[in-house]
Amino acid sequence: MSLGWKWFIEYQTPNSAHMHGIKSVIYSGKSKMQSIDIVESCEYGKMLILDGKVQSTMRDEYLYHEALVHPAMIAHPRPEEVLIIGGGEGGTLREVLRHTAVRETVMVDIDIEVVESSKRYLPELSRGAFDDGRVELVVGDGRRFVEGCRSRFDVVVVDVTDPLEGGPAQLLYTKEFYEGIKRILNEDGIVVTQATSVYYSAYCFATIYRTVESVFGRAGGYQAWIPAYDSMWGFVYGTKGPDPRVLSGDEVDERLVKRGIGDLKFYEGAIHRALFTLPRELRTVMKNAPVATDSSPTFMPI
Amino acid sequence: MSLGWKWFIEYQTPNSAHMHGIKSVIYSGKSKMQSIDIVESCEYGKMLILDGKVQSTMRDEYLYHEALVHPAMIAHPRPEEVLIIGGGEGGTLREVLRHTAVRETVMVDIDIEVVESSKRYLPELSRGAFDDGRVELVVGDGRRFVEGCRSRFDVVVVDVTDPLEGGPAQLLYTKEFYEGIKRILNEDGIVVTQATSVYYSAYCFATIYRTVESVFGRAGGYQAWIPAYDSMWGFVYGTKGPDPRVLSGDEVDERLVKRGIGDLKFYEGAIHRALFTLPRELRTVMKNAPVATDSSPTFMPI
Amino acid sequence: MSLGWKWFIEYQTPNSAHMHGIKSVIYSGKSKMQSIDIVESCEYGKMLILDGKVQSTMRDEYLYHEALVHPAMIAHPRPEEVLIIGGGEGGTLREVLRHTAVRETVMVDIDIEVVESSKRYLPELSRGAFDDGRVELVVGDGRRFVEGCRSRFDVVVVDVTDPLEGGPAQLLYTKEFYEGIKRILNEDGIVVTQATSVYYSAYCFATIYRTVESVFGRAGGYQAWIPAYDSMWGFVYGTKGPDPRVLSGDEVDERLVKRGIGDLKFYEGAIHRALFTLPRELRTVMKNAPVATDSSPTFMPI
Amino acid sequence: MSLGWKWFIEYQTPNSAHMHGIKSVIYSGKSKMQSIDIVESCEYGKMLILDGKVQSTMRDEYLYHEALVHPAMIAHPRPEEVLIIGGGEGGTLREVLRHTAVRETVMVDIDIEVVESSKRYLPELSRGAFDDGRVELVVGDGRRFVEGCRSRFDVVVVDVTDPLEGGPAQLLYTKEFYEGIKRILNEDGIVVTQATSVYYSAYCFATIYRTVESVFGRAGGYQAWIPAYDSMWGFVYGTKGPDPRVLSGDEVDERLVKRGIGDLKFYEGAIHRALFTLPRELRTVMKNAPVATDSSPTFMPI
Repeated sequence: MSLGWKWFIEYQTPNSAHMHGIKSVIYSGKSKMQSIDIVESCEYGKMLILDGKVQSTMRDEYLYHEALVHPAMIAHPRPEEVLIIGGGEGGTLREVLRHTAVRETVMVDIDIEVVESSKRYLPELSRGAFDDGRVELVVGDGRRFVEGCRSRFDVVVVDVTDPLEGGPAQLLYTKEFYEGIKRILNEDGIVVTQATSVYYSAYCFATIYRTVESVFGRAGGYQAWIPAYDSMWGFVYGTKGPDPRVLSGDEVDERLVKRGIGDLKFYEGAIHRALFTLPRELRTVMKNAPVATDSSPTFMPI
Repeated sequence: MSLGWKWFIEYQTPNSAHMHGIKSVIYSGKSKMQSIDIVESCEYGKMLILDGKVQSTMRDEYLYHEALVHPAMIAHPRPEEVLIIGGGEGGTLREVLRHTAVRETVMVDIDIEVVESSKRYLPELSRGAFDDGRVELVVGDGRRFVEGCRSRFDVVVVDVTDPLEGGPAQLLYTKEFYEGIKRILNEDGIVVTQATSVYYSAYCFATIYRTVESVFGRAGGYQAWIPAYDSMWGFVYGTKGPDPRVLSGDEVDERLVKRGIGDLKFYEGAIHRALFTLPRELRTVMKNAPVATDSSPTFMPI
Repeated sequence: MSLGWKWFIEYQTPNSAHMHGIKSVIYSGKSKMQSIDIVESCEYGKMLILDGKVQSTMRDEYLYHEALVHPAMIAHPRPEEVLIIGGGEGGTLREVLRHTAVRETVMVDIDIEVVESSKRYLPELSRGAFDDGRVELVVGDGRRFVEGCRSRFDVVVVDVTDPLEGGPAQLLYTKEFYEGIKRILNEDGIVVTQATSVYYSAYCFATIYRTVESVFGRAGGYQAWIPAYDSMWGFVYGTKGPDPRVLSGDEVDERLVKRGIGDLKFYEGAIHRALFTLPRELRTVMKNAPVATDSSPTFMPI
Repeated sequence: MSLGWKWFIEYQTPNSAHMHGIKSVIYSGKSKMQSIDIVESCEYGKMLILDGKVQSTMRDEYLYHEALVHPAMIAHPRPEEVLIIGGGEGGTLREVLRHTAVRETVMVDIDIEVVESSKRYLPELSRGAFDDGRVELVVGDGRRFVEGCRSRFDVVVVDVTDPLEGGPAQLLYTKEFYEGIKRILNEDGIVVTQATSVYYSAYCFATIYRTVESVFGRAGGYQAWIPAYDSMWGFVYGTKGPDPRVLSGDEVDERLVKRGIGDLKFYEGAIHRALFTLPRELRTVMKNAPVATDSSPTFMPI
């Protein structure tokens, strides 16, 4: 038998799950917020798992991080000040810093142990990004940071765990949270957030979209297939300035060249267009979803 | 515990699998070719499983069948004579028959028991298509049918199981097979085939692409996310006439209207464009794959 | 891969389970009481599964049925009138009828569909027992039958599903139920019941023991390893006459010969002694368990 | 969902497995011989896993270690010199040292990392036994040690991993090995070895029995249910002196008192008798098994 005996099983719902064979466990601990596991999987290479949900794998993390970061960054005419909420493993930071216009990136993560264990065991993710002179790392609650923040940003990237009932991120997907972000965005500012599975939690994705739209007026959703998430994954943006969705493929490719971003593995003009092509069924769900508020938040099915 | 106790586990590789909770088993049998299971799953509704691999589920079969059939059919100026190889459950046939230009569809499936059990237990798939006067059902081997065939077709759709070593479909993905198909295609004819996962078996997909290209000169690949297949799924076409890839979204939408195809759930102009957007990494694999022949066929990893 | 793709997973607790590879599903249905599945498993041959719990497998059913039936039957000087509650698959009935003293066996099962599907698909279990002229089959609720019963019995065998909260058997393990049984037992009468896992639900087993003891005064527990139950399995008896526990191995063997029971696969004198040897840890749990009543029944952990 | 997401799956055969929910991974490493995992499981507490097979769990290790050690030690009139081959986690050593007659115990384990990690992470197993002045620890190959050994022993306990094809223990179950042990046993000496599952690998168990019998003339098998092994587990002894099997329960209990062994959790006179009661089916297998030799060893099914 060449079958592994260690398995990580991620349930998308109580009756659907992905089994990952594990070669070895590199790190396994509990921080104040969550359990942190870093394992070497057979198919996806090293994986970061928080509270039992895969966050990043070496094989496909570039898909997620490029899809999360670049549409908003490329749409913005000159992203100099960037705020990242979450993203402790450093992949989002790495992609943000590719943009040479960036002068300062503040990254606020609630869990220093995710940052530290990722730097130590998953250096391929941050690739030195935490040592970049443009980076300021703040350990703290993203919601509180936004509410107390006096700085202003061009782009805000929200890269936090899924909204699970009782989980640490449940108030990072509400109207009140996005209002706070709108306040700290500069005039042309854009916010983008990961927005759960468009398939297994389409209603949750749609609610995030409607919530951002209710605050920003102009908002949109897009999707990318992330193999380790077993799903087309959703992203939602809201904008006070330019709208990422209207960029043509050629415009995207031109800007990538002009801004000197030349070695991406996934994102490019044609992909940008494909990301924003949502299927009919999903568009219907998005039309009818409610707005999430602090008193009535949205949650993933599990 | 609300957990189901019956599970269907589909291994993509020996160390990666999808667990499907099963409510009930509707039919379970063995034909001469393969095992046939029809189950009611918790997340995907009724599922057809052949030799342990999910073929169609009620929740997402439209994605696969629309993506397989319509790009080639829409690209063809007037698809009157259509050949389907495989497709016993009837979903491909159903989509072909939406095209009013179709005068005759020959469907060749090797396993009459798949056809019969699907008609009986999964009528939602064929929706009466087998009773359409334009349909001729042939029970037999697709490879032999093509080699002995004196008719000519405008579109050929190959909807057979994956190329598994020793499996019934292993010689339906080779140069010799595609040469036979080229021979029975009319002047503007187009062939399209399902082409395995672009992720878990990218090399196999790329080999199918290269093989079709080696026969037709003009060929291409595209992909659609099929949730029950746990993957972006690949399709490959070869053409003696028009090239599906160059159709604009507007052209697709116009043709759908003009041809009276109005109630699709997934396929439309914008989706057509997104299907043909392959990521850089996959394009690289496609450039370097070999050609599969009867003496050296291509296989899925498991 | 020689791995099956169909699995039956039985959870002993939410965090411990046995995975059974399944070759084929022979029957799958729902009666008014429960779901009934009969499958061909790779390791245990055909299995009967009720509401997701393995009841009998062709490979090891003789262990369970012999251990359940013979200690009480052999201890009784002349078991002529026997009542079986449950046991719809017929294995218990088969073992009871081996005893030539038996003149009449009444079998009361609530679910005729278990009886019918077992007779049809698992004839190896009953081996014609239902056609024996000494058998009367009553379809109905065991509790109600006992309460309304005017007959008297020498041995009562309770072979019903585990006491699950809300399940059909929850009132077949209470003081009130055993009082009813005591009433319909003849002077030397003995009752025996299956009594759940002595390991995964030791407290439940001990409660059943204490409940029977509270009614009968003289009672005892014993255990046998049933591979398909993944556990040492518990049995509890109560007696108005002879006590099975005090029989020596030689006495058991002599009675088996004298009564003409010669072809058992498992039960014999030495095994009888081993069955009644409970480990210290379990004896301690048995001392301190409570008595289950209709208003405060005992349940299995899941 | 209260389901764990980390699972350890132990396959008894390719189509039968036990799933253990895991709370946390305490240690995970690879020595030169094998992979070593120490995890906190939900149901069994801390578990030691070597090459994917559970060796000891905090919940039930006493069953295995008491059953392995005491029958032979109690049968021997005065066990002063003891050799343990394997047993790196220290549980076997702990039980041996309970016998006050013991003057010296040599323990030979091939993998110092099992010893070290068990001492550090599973101190409940050895409970200081390694620090006992009567203990000499030898790191090395058990087979080679026996062949070169000039000392003589009263009892030899073989506590090594299962005979897997190509595994480190494959030559620790052969005729040649037992001949070596016979040579280094004193006149009344007894050897006992773990002997795999009497159920999932009954033929392997029987072969070990026949092999020991072919060397010692007088030999026997016995069994104990070890929950974490999912099976009745087999043990085989060979003796040059007294035969453990013929001891009565009272004799065992008397010797335990006389020798001052008072706080066992499982082993006692009645249990001793039950251990040696093998079912008919197994006795039949034992009669017909072959003898394993270096050139034709016996293996577990997986």
